Amino acid sequence: MSVEHGKEIALEEAKSIEFWFDFASTYSYLSAMRIADMAREAGVSVAWRPFLLGPAFLALGWNDSPFNIYPPKGRYMWRDLERLCDKYGRAFKRPSQFPRNGLLAARIVCANEDAAWTPDFVRAVFSANFAADRDIGDRVVIADILTTLGRSTDELIAMAEMAENKEKLRHRSEQAISLGLFGAPSFIVDGELFWGNDRLEDALDWARKSST
Amino acid sequence: MSVEHGKEIALEEAKSIEFWFDFASTYSYLSAMRIADMAREAGVSVAWRPFLLGPAFLALGWNDSPFNIYPPKGRYMWRDLERLCDKYGRAFKRPSQFPRNGLLAARIVCANEDAAWTPDFVRAVFSANFAADRDIGDRVVIADILTTLGRSTDELIAMAEMAENKEKLRHRSEQAISLGLFGAPSFIVDGELFWGNDRLEDALDWARKSST
Repeated sequence: MSVEHGKEIALEEAKSIEFWFDFASTYSYLSAMRIADMAREAGVSVAWRPFLLGPAFLALGWNDSPFNIYPPKGRYMWRDLERLCDKYGRAFKRPSQFPRNGLLAARIVCANEDAAWTPDFVRAVFSANFAADRDIGDRVVIADILTTLGRSTDELIAMAEMAENKEKLRHRSEQAISLGLFGAPSFIVDGELFWGNDRLEDALDWARKSST
Repeated sequence: MSVEHGKEIALEEAKSIEFWFDFASTYSYLSAMRIADMAREAGVSVAWRPFLLGPAFLALGWNDSPFNIYPPKGRYMWRDLERLCDKYGRAFKRPSQFPRNGLLAARIVCANEDAAWTPDFVRAVFSANFAADRDIGDRVVIADILTTLGRSTDELIAMAEMAENKEKLRHRSEQAISLGLFGAPSFIVDGELFWGNDRLEDALDWARKSST
């Protein structure tokens, strides 16, 4: 970040997208698998923003996923997800438990948002949940994913569970509500909120336009 | 429909999409303005299926639009709609009343689903609601639209309000629930349900694939 390149850096920094996701969220799976390649192609950087949907849903009066509360929406979503995975060429296996507890995985990302291995970890956790039907709420599964990625498992889990980091994730989930989020995935570009995997292309277009 | 062309006709008839819409529905406006041209290009015929969302929402426990019941969803939807209208090059003026009463307009379509002028009427009613902020629940507005299209206003309104046609629309709205619909627009192709303006492209692709 040298001074003489200040202007270029400022332009580059403007081209960014915040990707807000919950590891239990079905449509977040689709965006998590797609966003890194698409953003790279668009010249846009990704800010990974794990949060917990629970508080946002509670604020709407829902104590469970709306896909469980409203059966017609749930039936449709599972079929839709299957079709979309086919379309995108992504593996899909309907989780035997839904929604799963993504707390530990979210805390790990929260403590390592800018690490080079974080996007791989995010994709591995989503794949475990939605392509392999593994219980991502089980720390053995999370430890296994970290080990596979060559990371120091015990240290990362200990870091993730430090009070300060727990507070960071709580703050993120409150911040999500104050930003107007009510579902996941959501994208924020230049103050504009985009909701749903369907809006990933539009959000990236917005980032391209807003930075030129 | 001559006998010697039977095979061709059968193939053509397989390529069709049911378009389920409610005149009060914001995202139905987008699909109503887009579907005819897109379907023509795809070689797919459109079956216009007006229905009332009210009973489907009541079945989910909602006595109003979810965009009114859940303010964060509503705030997002209005901004999203504005952005999408920009993207599609469509006029948009936020209606001063939402949702509006689309009963008479739906009855008129219900009685004339296959008429050549029906797609124009559908687009004119949606435009009145979402581009001109006119009260489509007012029969003077509906009469004005019919007159502009060169139709015999009094006769069409009388036909629309015959007991048999009222019953047809009621049946349609019940049929929507039994088909698994929970929102609008929805598309049905070859037994597959697609929900939302976002899925119009996918639904047309499905029609193309399922007929080849």
